Amino acid sequence: MSFPARHLSAPDLAQRLALVRDSSQALVDGLNPEDCALQSMPDASPAKWHLAHTTWFFETFVLERFAPNYAPFRTGFRDFYNSYYHAVGEQFPRAQRGLISRPVLAEVFAYRSHVDAAMQLLLGAETLPEDCLALVELGLNHEQQHQELILTDLLHLLSLNPFHPAYRAGACSASPPAPPLGWSRFEASIVDIGHDGIGFAFDNEMPRHRQFVEAYEIADRPVTNAEYLAFVGDGGYQRPELWLSEGWQVAQAQGWSAPIYWRRQEGGWQEFTLRGLQPLDPSRSVSNVSHYEADAYARWASARLPTEFEWEHAADSGARGILPGAVWEWTSSAYAPYPGFRTAPGAVGEYNGKFMANQYVLRGGSCATPASHIRPTYRNFFPSYARWQFSGIRLARDGSIR
Amino acid sequence: MSFPARHLSAPDLAQRLALVRDSSQALVDGLNPEDCALQSMPDASPAKWHLAHTTWFFETFVLERFAPNYAPFRTGFRDFYNSYYHAVGEQFPRAQRGLISRPVLAEVFAYRSHVDAAMQLLLGAETLPEDCLALVELGLNHEQQHQELILTDLLHLLSLNPFHPAYRAGACSASPPAPPLGWSRFEASIVDIGHDGIGFAFDNEMPRHRQFVEAYEIADRPVTNAEYLAFVGDGGYQRPELWLSEGWQVAQAQGWSAPIYWRRQEGGWQEFTLRGLQPLDPSRSVSNVSHYEADAYARWASARLPTEFEWEHAADSGARGILPGAVWEWTSSAYAPYPGFRTAPGAVGEYNGKFMANQYVLRGGSCATPASHIRPTYRNFFPSYARWQFSGIRLARDGSIR
Amino acid sequence: MSFPARHLSAPDLAQRLALVRDSSQALVDGLNPEDCALQSMPDASPAKWHLAHTTWFFETFVLERFAPNYAPFRTGFRDFYNSYYHAVGEQFPRAQRGLISRPVLAEVFAYRSHVDAAMQLLLGAETLPEDCLALVELGLNHEQQHQELILTDLLHLLSLNPFHPAYRAGACSASPPAPPLGWSRFEASIVDIGHDGIGFAFDNEMPRHRQFVEAYEIADRPVTNAEYLAFVGDGGYQRPELWLSEGWQVAQAQGWSAPIYWRRQEGGWQEFTLRGLQPLDPSRSVSNVSHYEADAYARWASARLPTEFEWEHAADSGARGILPGAVWEWTSSAYAPYPGFRTAPGAVGEYNGKFMANQYVLRGGSCATPASHIRPTYRNFFPSYARWQFSGIRLARDGSIR
Amino acid sequence: MSFPARHLSAPDLAQRLALVRDSSQALVDGLNPEDCALQSMPDASPAKWHLAHTTWFFETFVLERFAPNYAPFRTGFRDFYNSYYHAVGEQFPRAQRGLISRPVLAEVFAYRSHVDAAMQLLLGAETLPEDCLALVELGLNHEQQHQELILTDLLHLLSLNPFHPAYRAGACSASPPAPPLGWSRFEASIVDIGHDGIGFAFDNEMPRHRQFVEAYEIADRPVTNAEYLAFVGDGGYQRPELWLSEGWQVAQAQGWSAPIYWRRQEGGWQEFTLRGLQPLDPSRSVSNVSHYEADAYARWASARLPTEFEWEHAADSGARGILPGAVWEWTSSAYAPYPGFRTAPGAVGEYNGKFMANQYVLRGGSCATPASHIRPTYRNFFPSYARWQFSGIRLARDGSIR
Repeated sequence: MSFPARHLSAPDLAQRLALVRDSSQALVDGLNPEDCALQSMPDASPAKWHLAHTTWFFETFVLERFAPNYAPFRTGFRDFYNSYYHAVGEQFPRAQRGLISRPVLAEVFAYRSHVDAAMQLLLGAETLPEDCLALVELGLNHEQQHQELILTDLLHLLSLNPFHPAYRAGACSASPPAPPLGWSRFEASIVDIGHDGIGFAFDNEMPRHRQFVEAYEIADRPVTNAEYLAFVGDGGYQRPELWLSEGWQVAQAQGWSAPIYWRRQEGGWQEFTLRGLQPLDPSRSVSNVSHYEADAYARWASARLPTEFEWEHAADSGARGILPGAVWEWTSSAYAPYPGFRTAPGAVGEYNGKFMANQYVLRGGSCATPASHIRPTYRNFFPSYARWQFSGIRLARDGSIR
Repeated sequence: MSFPARHLSAPDLAQRLALVRDSSQALVDGLNPEDCALQSMPDASPAKWHLAHTTWFFETFVLERFAPNYAPFRTGFRDFYNSYYHAVGEQFPRAQRGLISRPVLAEVFAYRSHVDAAMQLLLGAETLPEDCLALVELGLNHEQQHQELILTDLLHLLSLNPFHPAYRAGACSASPPAPPLGWSRFEASIVDIGHDGIGFAFDNEMPRHRQFVEAYEIADRPVTNAEYLAFVGDGGYQRPELWLSEGWQVAQAQGWSAPIYWRRQEGGWQEFTLRGLQPLDPSRSVSNVSHYEADAYARWASARLPTEFEWEHAADSGARGILPGAVWEWTSSAYAPYPGFRTAPGAVGEYNGKFMANQYVLRGGSCATPASHIRPTYRNFFPSYARWQFSGIRLARDGSIR
Repeated sequence: MSFPARHLSAPDLAQRLALVRDSSQALVDGLNPEDCALQSMPDASPAKWHLAHTTWFFETFVLERFAPNYAPFRTGFRDFYNSYYHAVGEQFPRAQRGLISRPVLAEVFAYRSHVDAAMQLLLGAETLPEDCLALVELGLNHEQQHQELILTDLLHLLSLNPFHPAYRAGACSASPPAPPLGWSRFEASIVDIGHDGIGFAFDNEMPRHRQFVEAYEIADRPVTNAEYLAFVGDGGYQRPELWLSEGWQVAQAQGWSAPIYWRRQEGGWQEFTLRGLQPLDPSRSVSNVSHYEADAYARWASARLPTEFEWEHAADSGARGILPGAVWEWTSSAYAPYPGFRTAPGAVGEYNGKFMANQYVLRGGSCATPASHIRPTYRNFFPSYARWQFSGIRLARDGSIR
Repeated sequence: MSFPARHLSAPDLAQRLALVRDSSQALVDGLNPEDCALQSMPDASPAKWHLAHTTWFFETFVLERFAPNYAPFRTGFRDFYNSYYHAVGEQFPRAQRGLISRPVLAEVFAYRSHVDAAMQLLLGAETLPEDCLALVELGLNHEQQHQELILTDLLHLLSLNPFHPAYRAGACSASPPAPPLGWSRFEASIVDIGHDGIGFAFDNEMPRHRQFVEAYEIADRPVTNAEYLAFVGDGGYQRPELWLSEGWQVAQAQGWSAPIYWRRQEGGWQEFTLRGLQPLDPSRSVSNVSHYEADAYARWASARLPTEFEWEHAADSGARGILPGAVWEWTSSAYAPYPGFRTAPGAVGEYNGKFMANQYVLRGGSCATPASHIRPTYRNFFPSYARWQFSGIRLARDGSIR
């Protein structure tokens, strides 16, 4: 395992497990079974699937291996809830996750209880091997990642509904007014990048290594809706010179004219949010933009996106307004292994490494990100076209241009 | 209206309305909200949608026009549950019916109750115009058509589930053993085709008119699973000379090797049914085959499909074993207007006529068809590739070949 | 063979062969090798392919079987130029016919000469079996069908060229002014349909049989550009109530707003023709419309398309202005086998029969049709969406409406 | 212009122009017009198009602006041969370049002569502005890039031909036997990356800047066919654990089982080359592999691809066997702007920068690359799936693992 060297103890993990598992389930409180069963597009998954797949993770990677008397909840789940681990076996086709009515939501809840009980039993045992503890901690962080996906996928699903239903009243509610934009400046230097191994981190955050970073400036807050609206108003979506060639093609083919959840209405711009359709809040960070849009906006603003190394260095240096924001922030860095990167042995080696192609790194965290996940070294990643994440824009510029 | 000249009375309609509406709802008794919300493919619709759309039909075509004080249940439903009536307004995209979690099933039930009450109020009124009564009767027959679709669409949905869930224990249960195949022979003659206008019929069954039919023979029962299995075993799906060119292309592109719900397993062939996965019943009529497969089978059997005129003439003549069967029976007739066909004025004119292209007529009725729909003149129609209907095969052959 | 009972003699066939083969080659006189090599869409083929495939037909079906000492021009051609005959062997993928630069045009000419010489040698032999003569005659008619396709496919190819190149100065030049529209009326009767077997006919024109035809009227000339322009001007492409549902979907998805070769320009409508871009001729028959458009126009004009039986009966009866026209005329009849239809044994049995699904019959002939092909019983057929053929509209209406 | 500060003189450019233009035309000597007109896929272009587009480049960017009396060869060419420059105007759809038979090849030759004469006239003028000279030099380098594409695109076209035609006897002929694999080792350091501005370079090679590179080793020759064959034989294409997730999906969807031009035949492996079908040469560098395949091979070989910085540093350091090879070498670096990158003003600013998304950098050069293009700083780039370039594999590994 390239995961943390020193782990939480079994009792600590047992306590965190209860908390994390409860908070997942709390996300669907008040939803209907239908809300949790539908899949709005192949990139998204039903909430019910997220709740089951995170359970499957514990069952497959922890209980199967370390709890010899464990009886699987239902044998067919092994393939059915396998997301993408070839080493585990077959996978049910991703695009068809929303075509499965049964198990119904209540049965998924029962599955969760079954596995939770077995996990608590296991963690109460006298001694557990190191890699078991590491896998439990990985499972917790994995589930927290899916907590955010539950929200982003629900938002996308509800956004297709002509009746504009709200997910929940206060969800990801409005941020305080944005201050005027300021910049932090850093001189060229060799910087240390990546996680130091103290506490949990994903394998893709390691190993810690050196990068040379030229002088740069980085904005002290993300781009706001008001600023992005100026871009839209200035013909931002009609001017190919502002766009990457591939971005322009995608935007034309799909008819983009604003961020995915913006709605132009008679009384002005609205935004579809987890709280339903709301007037566009000018002071809030623009959210749910693709890498293509972020890049075009930056070009229009005579700036650029930061590299992930600039971003991490600024965060490490305590630069003003870097951690945390309300949106993930696209960087200009393609998602790639750090020098010396090694995948973990076994199936969990498939966790991150095999996705290091044609995706871009996002840094920071969003209103939907569990707070414990927000750290300077965390590397989120999505394809350039992805718009259904809470992804925004932080500007940077070369230090030499001042 | 080209619909019936003499209608049921308002009290009769009120009684039938209650029965038909209840039987629709009974079809989803015991199902979960998830079962009713999912859409397995663009050609199918969620059960919840069928329940709402049939309600919309009464609301839009009857209550809006004839019940002046009627308050719509929810304004947005007018577009949302419009299937394909351009004259009514916009339509929600068909392929996205399964992306809508709300209204939830319980709200659709409330919608049904709301409209049912208004309909009963209307039908209790002293006098109602003729075309109002005609539209109510059309609405009842419309809803009965959707009752069958609820079952065919649920079967398709459940068939994708790796856990093989059953819809209901006794649904469309096995038929009695098939007798040996016999033939009825008819000489060449001018025959009368189409509905005579006494009692309800759809516009596409009219006007009654003449056709010349050459001498023919028609089988006295549909093709059985045992017979179709012989076709499969004889390489039926590997021999292009048996197939229409287009059918061969579709079959190759989609990897057909047996009817859609057949499953080859270690212990022999199984069939996925509304009762779950069952051993293939050799004496049961082969079901859920496309027009392409029906045509290929007939060629393999040195026979052909009947024309819809031959079929109707045989049924009218009381030929043995024509009415009713357990499956719809593909004919060789393309779906086309009868000579002198006129569509009804207004939106209901879109009911049948505009689909008269590139579809083939099926005659008879299936185990899922309401009994009152089974009549010699009824014209069902689906595209050549359709396999998710309870569609089977009846053979015919030229009279001159004996 | 269901082909003609009494054939041309070998010397007559030899003479016709020379004429037909020369006229094919004359169609590409003055063209460049590039013109003959490109394929504009999967439905069309390069002219070079047509010239080679028609040659392959003689080589495969006649020389291989009846000329024992014949040496194939090049062995690989047997699969390469096989269009769709499974009984002959593999087929090169149709959509890739335009990806093959070699054999170059000159080599195809050499192939033609090689086969022509062998054919003349064969036809000079003392005695030839009946089915050999029948296959030669079929091959001649087959080649004549491809002569028309050479022109329709070239027109489509050149229509994509922004420089509007003409095929040839006088090709399919303008027709004389259209007379005012008149109608011929026929009473209900049993009519004889299909070819009587005297002289050549394709298998799909047989057997001759009876149909009952209700009273009808049929127009004495095809619809003109001026008439069709009125339909366009009246919003014909924006009114769903005029269209078949499937036609409306296709028209919307592909953005149809006029016939495929019409171009709206500043000075008025132009039409791209084999003679290049020309002002739209109001008196000329509208051409290159799909079945969907023909059907919509007829509905707009309070008429309908004739059935193929009405058309043939009118032509047989010598009705005014039926034979020949400048365009093929869409009928409302789906392409289906006649009662008692039998395919020929062997590979040529694949010639027509296997395409009898989801296509519509056209009758008559066009400016590009060899004159000897124009006869009352000839059945041309294309899918509803096809627009690259010289296909137009003749109106009909029920006799009872007068 | 971010292009070179000190240019070749006008007379030198005139001389080079003649040479470069002649060598382009020499590439199609002996080909048929059909060979030059076809487009085998949207990513490739007809040879005729390359010959015209490179001419258009001079006409549009040089003659239009600096030769006031220049008369365009044909006005429509401005849009027709515009590849992707939005600032110039409309572009003819890329995927349809192979649907245009005219202008024929001879007319393209005439176009070339017309522009060549005007260019020579211009370059003979007394004084020319600096940016004119820079654009001429860019045009020459641009044309040289297309020379390689002419060959790669022809190879792909001919590879689809069932008759395996050769492009030319000696083209890209076999390389000498590969020596045993050795490695060069470099310690961690800050390295200078990018072009120093002396002599020509593309804008994407600048500005020169610093990168930190950890200790690494790099192979002294590319991977051979024999080595790659061992990967194939070891189930390389059947083992998902060796592949990036996206690469595995592409490989499965497209049925990859070996490099695109390898053919498994009875007598052993063959490779389709510009010289026709040849026995696979075990000592030759494996070529025409995608980034996905290169990455999977490296993982199988317990190594990795080099970063583009490692590669350039090794080349700059004179490491053994880096420059030149017979194949372009995939690096692990996503194509991205260098720190401080600026695009040139005007339309040529679209030359490189807008493609910096979801592509990977290749370094070195191939047997088809003009020798003057091979320099340590040159950055070629293609998407991960691209297989029709002469792209191979050079291995690297972390310095710390020894």
